Amino acid sequence: MPEHTMLMKESLLALLNDKKFFSLRDILTTMNPVDIAAIFDGLEEDRLPLLFRLLPKELAAETFVEMEPEAQELLIRGFSDSELKAVIDELYVDDAVDIVEEMPANVVRRILNQADPEMRKEINEILRYPEDSAGSIMTTECVTLRPNMTVEEAIKRIRRTGIDKETIYTCYVTAEDRTLVGLTTVKDLLLCEDDDERISELMEENVISVNTLEDKEHVAQLFSKYDFLALPVVDTEGRLVGIVTFDDAMDVMEEETTEDMEKMAAMLPSEKPYMRSSTLEIWKNRIPWLLLLMVSATFTGMILSYYENALAAQLVLTTFVPMLMDTAGNSGSQTSVTVIRGLSLGELKLGDLPKILWKECRVAILCGVTLAVAVFLKILLIDKLLLGGDGITVSVMLTVCITMAVTVLLAKLVGAVLPIVAEKLGFDPAVMASPFITTIVDALALLVYFQVATLLLGL
Amino acid sequence: MPEHTMLMKESLLALLNDKKFFSLRDILTTMNPVDIAAIFDGLEEDRLPLLFRLLPKELAAETFVEMEPEAQELLIRGFSDSELKAVIDELYVDDAVDIVEEMPANVVRRILNQADPEMRKEINEILRYPEDSAGSIMTTECVTLRPNMTVEEAIKRIRRTGIDKETIYTCYVTAEDRTLVGLTTVKDLLLCEDDDERISELMEENVISVNTLEDKEHVAQLFSKYDFLALPVVDTEGRLVGIVTFDDAMDVMEEETTEDMEKMAAMLPSEKPYMRSSTLEIWKNRIPWLLLLMVSATFTGMILSYYENALAAQLVLTTFVPMLMDTAGNSGSQTSVTVIRGLSLGELKLGDLPKILWKECRVAILCGVTLAVAVFLKILLIDKLLLGGDGITVSVMLTVCITMAVTVLLAKLVGAVLPIVAEKLGFDPAVMASPFITTIVDALALLVYFQVATLLLGL
Repeated sequence: MPEHTMLMKESLLALLNDKKFFSLRDILTTMNPVDIAAIFDGLEEDRLPLLFRLLPKELAAETFVEMEPEAQELLIRGFSDSELKAVIDELYVDDAVDIVEEMPANVVRRILNQADPEMRKEINEILRYPEDSAGSIMTTECVTLRPNMTVEEAIKRIRRTGIDKETIYTCYVTAEDRTLVGLTTVKDLLLCEDDDERISELMEENVISVNTLEDKEHVAQLFSKYDFLALPVVDTEGRLVGIVTFDDAMDVMEEETTEDMEKMAAMLPSEKPYMRSSTLEIWKNRIPWLLLLMVSATFTGMILSYYENALAAQLVLTTFVPMLMDTAGNSGSQTSVTVIRGLSLGELKLGDLPKILWKECRVAILCGVTLAVAVFLKILLIDKLLLGGDGITVSVMLTVCITMAVTVLLAKLVGAVLPIVAEKLGFDPAVMASPFITTIVDALALLVYFQVATLLLGL
Repeated sequence: MPEHTMLMKESLLALLNDKKFFSLRDILTTMNPVDIAAIFDGLEEDRLPLLFRLLPKELAAETFVEMEPEAQELLIRGFSDSELKAVIDELYVDDAVDIVEEMPANVVRRILNQADPEMRKEINEILRYPEDSAGSIMTTECVTLRPNMTVEEAIKRIRRTGIDKETIYTCYVTAEDRTLVGLTTVKDLLLCEDDDERISELMEENVISVNTLEDKEHVAQLFSKYDFLALPVVDTEGRLVGIVTFDDAMDVMEEETTEDMEKMAAMLPSEKPYMRSSTLEIWKNRIPWLLLLMVSATFTGMILSYYENALAAQLVLTTFVPMLMDTAGNSGSQTSVTVIRGLSLGELKLGDLPKILWKECRVAILCGVTLAVAVFLKILLIDKLLLGGDGITVSVMLTVCITMAVTVLLAKLVGAVLPIVAEKLGFDPAVMASPFITTIVDALALLVYFQVATLLLGL
């Protein structure tokens, strides 16, 4: 919690202790619901309902939406039926759905009982869509117009029906059978100089829409590509069933990025924010990859034991193993993270593989040569002259330098190919990131090392 | 380029070859400027100006904004002064600034010469703000109202002046001296039932605003926290100087995330998209960290050479070095990436460190025990029974298991502490991620390994 929120919380609690309810209400009404929710989330069970009841109706609902599920549940359990109904009546359908999804069954039943029939129907409809679909994040409340309306009629309709809509700024034009035929914006309507112009003349007919079953990650990408405020969702017959608004798309983008980062760091995607996850939940997300990668490191171990006798003869070679493995791992993950991010932003495509490989080859050669020279100087100056390392002959130095250059090249190629192959095969490229690639290039680095050593040192 | 864009490009070029200009224009006007720009970016020098001139004025400007700087420059160089002026007149100020920032000096001079004096002044004003500030991403065009206006007057003013504004939906209320005193939305204005109500009664007075010098990353965080459409930017006297719109905030969010990922994968943040970066630019972003990490792996090498003789006596210990180092690295980066992401989303704060450490301790103990048991079984079943590894005694197995448990604990603590300390010291926590932590925990893993080995195996 930021410091000013902390301070505000202290003041509010002091006022509550002194029973200064009017001042409390005055202060709360000046605040943003997001900030009120942040304070309410941390309150004790007996304080929360007291403070919540001080909020004016609309602000109460806006604050409720922003609160953590635990606090929401606590409040609902304390609400009378009429209090619950008052809050639900103020909610947008998509927010109501988000809340329902987090509540235990008996609380859900109470919520649905208190919602009016129209809202109950809409909540149930949205709940039916698969978890990661456009349908599951849409709202059914949007402004619809008819092509034969005039601009004046359209503005009147918006003024009459807009109150319950999450956004009124993008208006969707539908035919009799609810097929989406166009869209217009409040800006176009307001700036139109002729009040009698028909919507059909004003509207944009080439509307980008998504199907209810479209992956929500793709929906979020469309938002960031086209800078939409809202995106219409249609069924397979092209009928308008709802809209996704930019705020929900931004949330999806943020979630997907977090998931990508988690996968890249060898974790399963978390269901809840870190602070609200239990030790066991965090363990469950982390241990599978740790186990898998631990077992797969067996190969690296096998390579080392295969060359055990060779190593015994040239023990100094062991000294450079961590450096070679680490550098290979770092080189590989630089490339894989670049490619994974490019794929997820839509900047790179499967068809770009040859270009990417060619680019990575050139970069790898530059990096490999730089590192080989640097490692030569490092061994000469630090390991040999400064630390007086025995047994570091010119052949050993050459072995390390050549291995370095070759493994950097291999690591960068593996780093580029694996995520793209994963995407091609329909896996998430993010799971191919650093840890997995590190394991592979570690093994490659050792193989190259001992091959070069065999040639140059005659192991 | 997605496949349908590719297909569209082929059709357009075929029509251009057949000189079917009317059909071309018809098709282009049905398309979204973002998609047209994607096609135009890849065109040859002689085709681009031909196709671009077919676009109607407004669509031409919208498309121009979405194009890559290289294509923009090509077009500008081919434009007559009046063509250039026509495009610039249609641009929003913030888009004009983005273009100017990417162009060489002589092109900038031509652009500024063709812009009308008001726009030139505004472009120059925005250009003066520091690179990563709110001022640099804002636009100066927004709807301003006065507190004593009526709703009807306000709507009239919007209809009269809205045409040049990037967004009309959030209107800012300013006093005589341009101080920001409130805001209202077109939704509130349209839904207000009394046309004679004063703006001062309708407006929201508690406006969240940022200073012109505020870091743009913080601006983007405010957008995702409060779901704003636009955010007002004020000078130190509280006077309104511009607004940041959500589309620019989304771009900043995306850039910052990419930067975070790059830093986490040991790269310097890139200036340009991958495909537009030269080999040398990519090399420059990658080599510094590779060199630094390579040199710092010296410590790990030193630990290995220090125990060289001990290793010679128990060569089998070498086999498990990669596995122990990799697992330690993976455990550490799981935690560091979780903490870094939490910090950048604002979910975790400096003050949470004790809670985080306690949580990570418990997770680490669970993970450590699981891994120790798993590694025991793995060595027993795979290394000893299946591969018939010589010299794998019970003491060796115990050494590996204990090391595993201890290093996982250490790795997770280092992974939690380092990003938070970095944040505390004013560094970017992202640079503390995997590669850096891997280097540290590699050294730790080896130290623990040899300490335990000394105790149990009497090296």
